[in-house]
Amino acid sequence: MESIVITEVALRDGLQNQAVTVATPDKLQLIRLLAQAGVTSLEATSFVSPKAVPQMADAAELVPQVLSALPDLRMSVLVPNAKGLERAHAAGAQEIAVVLSATETMNRKNINMSLAQATDVSEQTLQAARARGLRTRAYVAVAFDCPFEGAVPLDVVAALSRRMLDAGAQEIVIADTIGSASPGQVKQRLGTLTQCVPAQQLAVHFHDTRAMGVANAWAALEAGIRRFDASVGGIGGCPFAPGAAGNVATEDLVLMAGQSGFRCGIDINGLLDAIAFAEQLLQRRLGGRAITWLQRQRDKGVAALAA
Amino acid sequence: MESIVITEVALRDGLQNQAVTVATPDKLQLIRLLAQAGVTSLEATSFVSPKAVPQMADAAELVPQVLSALPDLRMSVLVPNAKGLERAHAAGAQEIAVVLSATETMNRKNINMSLAQATDVSEQTLQAARARGLRTRAYVAVAFDCPFEGAVPLDVVAALSRRMLDAGAQEIVIADTIGSASPGQVKQRLGTLTQCVPAQQLAVHFHDTRAMGVANAWAALEAGIRRFDASVGGIGGCPFAPGAAGNVATEDLVLMAGQSGFRCGIDINGLLDAIAFAEQLLQRRLGGRAITWLQRQRDKGVAALAA
Repeated sequence: MESIVITEVALRDGLQNQAVTVATPDKLQLIRLLAQAGVTSLEATSFVSPKAVPQMADAAELVPQVLSALPDLRMSVLVPNAKGLERAHAAGAQEIAVVLSATETMNRKNINMSLAQATDVSEQTLQAARARGLRTRAYVAVAFDCPFEGAVPLDVVAALSRRMLDAGAQEIVIADTIGSASPGQVKQRLGTLTQCVPAQQLAVHFHDTRAMGVANAWAALEAGIRRFDASVGGIGGCPFAPGAAGNVATEDLVLMAGQSGFRCGIDINGLLDAIAFAEQLLQRRLGGRAITWLQRQRDKGVAALAA
Repeated sequence: MESIVITEVALRDGLQNQAVTVATPDKLQLIRLLAQAGVTSLEATSFVSPKAVPQMADAAELVPQVLSALPDLRMSVLVPNAKGLERAHAAGAQEIAVVLSATETMNRKNINMSLAQATDVSEQTLQAARARGLRTRAYVAVAFDCPFEGAVPLDVVAALSRRMLDAGAQEIVIADTIGSASPGQVKQRLGTLTQCVPAQQLAVHFHDTRAMGVANAWAALEAGIRRFDASVGGIGGCPFAPGAAGNVATEDLVLMAGQSGFRCGIDINGLLDAIAFAEQLLQRRLGGRAITWLQRQRDKGVAALAA
């Protein structure tokens, strides 16, 4: 059985635009439950302005607590620029991620920079992180469609991916930020992108707005991708992208991959425990597309679902 | 753009185990709405015992009304045996379908026959239908997993498919009756089955129990399949298969296929009209996995979604 790696992003992409602010000890407990379920890679927070994203104001407190409680967990944190990198590094983070949107308008609306400026900032941040010996990821956001500009040229996505790689990104995350991609488009784009970036350094990040998240993940597996972002319970969405829904749910992805012959080491019943806890925190029902069936299996006593 | 054919099964597989019995004029109106949306192939009813499936008791009334109202619609009806075929033929049906489950236990529980007996009955029914000049489909049910026996041997599915083809079936429908299949399993099974039956005579029938219906449809497209069953609004389920949920929703399939480069000639906003009507009839919320996003697009005035 081949393995895949799922990076759990509920704590960052999932929580960043939730109405309820989650306390630091509760975040730590959610991370513990996810690690108990078998999650080995997790994006914990982002070192952005607390004014822009209040949910992430405790980044500098959370990071050392996670490092202390779960030293074996591969934890990544998002940094918008060199200043964020300094804060993340001071907090002890060993892996950082930068986000570069692939269109002019998305960068203007999101961070008030041109695409060229944003690319420079991402490159400088990656280089600075590598100089400090940190591991690095680079998101290429709106890599399919932009909510403002529509279809994004594939050659732009490929060129930006290559530039991030050359600047020191060890993993390039192709992000369908607004959840508009179809499996046919995933096949086509990843077919090209795997010619520019080695498949083992490519990851994909799908949102499930049009209910194609799982199908897109399968198309990515078929294109040779083995690294996936996902959010437990499908928590999430992008506050700056109109119409974006949550990430593809970790439990849906684990189920599909497991049944399709890919091991990810994550136990779905453990994820259901994490979802139940997150529901208490966020005061609402959570769960991806398969949640009803998954809960029924657990309630029937099915011991271990697809690890 | 390549074309696919979707056979709409909401009227048969969708309605057969619904608590509310739908009146014949309402069924006809639902079929009209579906045809207006661009549906060209539809399974309208089944000529089974009215005691077993009260919802289908009006089969002999419905068929001539549909033929008269929508002469261009390709309409299929399910028949369990030669007697059902006689009734269907007398009602004017020009296309019939038989259902053969691929395991001993499923046949015993479902129709109180052995697999060998059920195979004989299906063969005889297909031969009789061809002798009358009717078009024919044959479902191979529980073609992935059986709720009673577990994983169904692929060589059994292949052999039964071949026998149905040789008995005169013009289309073999590989049915994931309990919605347990994953895209990896679909790829593997259809890779073998397309060696036994020409791909253009194979159709697939997915249920969405584990939220993999759309991903499975994509895997089937990749395997060369161009014929799909689907149920508008995801209406449905199998009354004899514990845990089975509704069919993959027509609107989800049309969206995925359309965005992936396959034309099916069906307008999603037209399907939303049919769903709204079906919701009145069944007195409950309907809709597949993408329904929220689709309705929002319509409400924003997006004129034609993926036809």
